[in-house]
Amino acid sequence: MASSLRIALAPGDGIGPEIMAATLDLFAAAGVTRLIEFVPVAMGKSEFERGNTRGMSEDAIRTVEDCGVLFKGPMETIKGAGGKSINVTARKLWNAFANLRTFRTLPGVETVYSRAGVNLNLTIVRENIEDTYGGVEHRLSNDMIQCKRLISAPGSDEVCRFAFQTARRLGVTRLHCGHKANIMKMTDGLFLDRFRAAARDFPEIEAGDVIVDALCMNLVMKPQQYQMLVLPNLQGDIVSDLAAGLVGGLGFAPSANIGKHISIFEAVHGTAPDIAGKGLANPAALILSGLMMLRHLGLTSHAATIENALLAALEQGVHTGDFGGGGVSSGKPALSTKDFVKGIVERLGSKPATVPPVPVPEASTHALLNRPARPAGQTVIRTFSNVVRHVVGCDIYLDTPLSPVSVAEEMQRIAGDTPFKLTLISNRGTQVWPTGSVYTECVDYYRVRFELRDTLRPGDFGQSPCVALLDKIAEKFEVCSYELLRTFDGVKGYSMAQGQ
Amino acid sequence: MASSLRIALAPGDGIGPEIMAATLDLFAAAGVTRLIEFVPVAMGKSEFERGNTRGMSEDAIRTVEDCGVLFKGPMETIKGAGGKSINVTARKLWNAFANLRTFRTLPGVETVYSRAGVNLNLTIVRENIEDTYGGVEHRLSNDMIQCKRLISAPGSDEVCRFAFQTARRLGVTRLHCGHKANIMKMTDGLFLDRFRAAARDFPEIEAGDVIVDALCMNLVMKPQQYQMLVLPNLQGDIVSDLAAGLVGGLGFAPSANIGKHISIFEAVHGTAPDIAGKGLANPAALILSGLMMLRHLGLTSHAATIENALLAALEQGVHTGDFGGGGVSSGKPALSTKDFVKGIVERLGSKPATVPPVPVPEASTHALLNRPARPAGQTVIRTFSNVVRHVVGCDIYLDTPLSPVSVAEEMQRIAGDTPFKLTLISNRGTQVWPTGSVYTECVDYYRVRFELRDTLRPGDFGQSPCVALLDKIAEKFEVCSYELLRTFDGVKGYSMAQGQ
Repeated sequence: MASSLRIALAPGDGIGPEIMAATLDLFAAAGVTRLIEFVPVAMGKSEFERGNTRGMSEDAIRTVEDCGVLFKGPMETIKGAGGKSINVTARKLWNAFANLRTFRTLPGVETVYSRAGVNLNLTIVRENIEDTYGGVEHRLSNDMIQCKRLISAPGSDEVCRFAFQTARRLGVTRLHCGHKANIMKMTDGLFLDRFRAAARDFPEIEAGDVIVDALCMNLVMKPQQYQMLVLPNLQGDIVSDLAAGLVGGLGFAPSANIGKHISIFEAVHGTAPDIAGKGLANPAALILSGLMMLRHLGLTSHAATIENALLAALEQGVHTGDFGGGGVSSGKPALSTKDFVKGIVERLGSKPATVPPVPVPEASTHALLNRPARPAGQTVIRTFSNVVRHVVGCDIYLDTPLSPVSVAEEMQRIAGDTPFKLTLISNRGTQVWPTGSVYTECVDYYRVRFELRDTLRPGDFGQSPCVALLDKIAEKFEVCSYELLRTFDGVKGYSMAQGQ
Repeated sequence: MASSLRIALAPGDGIGPEIMAATLDLFAAAGVTRLIEFVPVAMGKSEFERGNTRGMSEDAIRTVEDCGVLFKGPMETIKGAGGKSINVTARKLWNAFANLRTFRTLPGVETVYSRAGVNLNLTIVRENIEDTYGGVEHRLSNDMIQCKRLISAPGSDEVCRFAFQTARRLGVTRLHCGHKANIMKMTDGLFLDRFRAAARDFPEIEAGDVIVDALCMNLVMKPQQYQMLVLPNLQGDIVSDLAAGLVGGLGFAPSANIGKHISIFEAVHGTAPDIAGKGLANPAALILSGLMMLRHLGLTSHAATIENALLAALEQGVHTGDFGGGGVSSGKPALSTKDFVKGIVERLGSKPATVPPVPVPEASTHALLNRPARPAGQTVIRTFSNVVRHVVGCDIYLDTPLSPVSVAEEMQRIAGDTPFKLTLISNRGTQVWPTGSVYTECVDYYRVRFELRDTLRPGDFGQSPCVALLDKIAEKFEVCSYELLRTFDGVKGYSMAQGQ
């Protein structure tokens, strides 16, 4: 017999320990714990309380990195202690760049949609690192705060390719990219471009795209039209939770965070402190997340056996207090966490009758995790390496309550003997100079754009005259922000203002 | 009899002209056109084709500004012509800062929710100017593109106060702010703060807040729990379209863009070129948007009369080809646009029987629009005027494919004889120096943070040593971006990195 594989285990806070214990009981009954050794790690509330702003001990970090897989229950992030969400920290720390979630109509879980006879089987891949989740925010004037939304080509490549690979593995035939490239033309335009570039390597999968607001409407009206989606981080966050609602809520929505080296399998619902310790919580999402983990480790026969038993139990009205009560569970008592799992254990080997059972492959004899060697240091991932870049100007951002006209006068004076001319002033993205509307309301934060005079050509200068101009303007104004304007292979690397 | 009020009218493209004609027929039959004179303006596809990148003629702009109200059909933005969305341009040009939309279960419009007996009556106010809709985007390295997400205090004030005022006018007792302040702590934190500040002036309205992803799940699972929502721009966009889906799609979701001086009432669905000119289109959303306009102009009795007739027609199975076919409309033919409106006209004076009729107040004798005088120039709106600001450092962003360690060495060397010490390097928001994880994948764009040395205090310097530091770094690196770090009344005006 092969030796067992070590997996880091963090039961979590609130209802976490009890749903984790029930899940492990089920996994033990299915023979999983002969092949996997779960190694407890210290993460969550207790670590925050010890003053660890990351919410995890150094030892926990080491163990997770040794194991390559973390199975975790819900955790509490202590507010106000300066700590960031432990879930976000874990994803970023270990570069688990893809959030993979599946949303399926389950028998016995009544929803508006199940009652209407609408069956869902939707997989969502959400980019997990970038977008506004970098948390890079600055107060740029008394009245204006900025958050940077960052989208990179290699980050988009990684998550889009992962989505196509997953589609191929799952036998999904159609993958849609959700985005807002009609408004965020450059950032989401890049995400969409990289999606299309990835699509070329997966010709058997139909690749489509859909604007995120239309997507949300479509998901509500006719969710069965989508098989699989890939989205940038924030949009993916919103759409995933919407999809969870379609199948009965976070209690039935498993989640995996996949990285090259380390992956995290977790229930994304809360810690439900109101019912914690009472043995009443619903472990379904954690069990389903665990099944994703078993499949990640090659234990597909164990996963299929457990899943069929779970489906059989649900369709026979086995339920905890948070769902059921109508339909097949009508008249059947709400079970405790332990009895709910007992209902599944009793059905191990059975198959569901009202929904298609999951095919059970030949029994796996050992768990397997293929992962690259631990890197010696951070890797720099790249998509575009050979690009000809030319400086063509700069955007300078002023913290001032002056009127647009006054700002324009000052700027033209200051730029007088530089290689640049003032071409634009905008406020909150709307042009206010050289033309603009008297109805535009301004705040105390202006963008001032300088571009090369007509006699000069891109590449005539590097960035130094831009910095010199910034220097001159800073003598008179508070410069809260600055961006270099360049062309990349002849294409402008910056957007126009609204109304320009 | 009072003279009629002039309203600018842009029928739109595709199905626009036919649904607008039908709507005006209905309004004429209800006596509206005795009180309102509709003045046609040139906007949309034809203007784009004339090379007008704003999609509207100068004359149209003048007329809209004279009238103060624009009633418009759906319009096409020609792609690739450099033109931005005409809808976005119109909102920004005239500072129509609040998007007001209502979502109501209508009789005869079958949806998953109506079949489940769930009745919706939800009002959403979306901020219309700020957020990533400023469209301020920059390519900052070969591989990284940034979009600025801008949230201002006075912009948030305006839209939150408008939401509370609208709630008061509509008799709504509970208003929720949707946001993502758990991740975008400073920007959405500001939006939420200003919401709470506004709430203090409306004590009779219960003010709550909800994280946007949870909101979307809740809306799908139990939409009737919300009466009214106010959200930042992008989140509001997504949630509005989700809500439209709950009541049958954009064909039943009216929309108003409200500004201090100019307001725009429009159907937000597309131009449906596939059925344009065939007389088949559903004018319901445009009619409902028109009713919002009539109420905006004080014509509440006309609006109520038309609305009751519309409800009566719908509940009796009057429908166009895009909806109905089951329920009350079962066996009834799909009507043309004209006959659909005829069905409403025939019921003017009737009331619906299956849903509560709208109370009809005493007949209005004239249309009225209260608006401030045309401003002489752009106004600067402000919330925080007296704030003590001290420079404490700067964030400098580098376009380089070097490793974090190499970047750190260079930065420490360069900052050696300046008032600043290197405190942080992050990549895509995750700290990579002084500590970091070997698993963090970097891209060719770094944030390098410099803060005052321990011997110095905030306020010891202004911004000039920051600019000097930028200057020195730019001798060796491509500096693609820069931000000044300050305290505002003693509070840091910048976020920490993930893992810091």
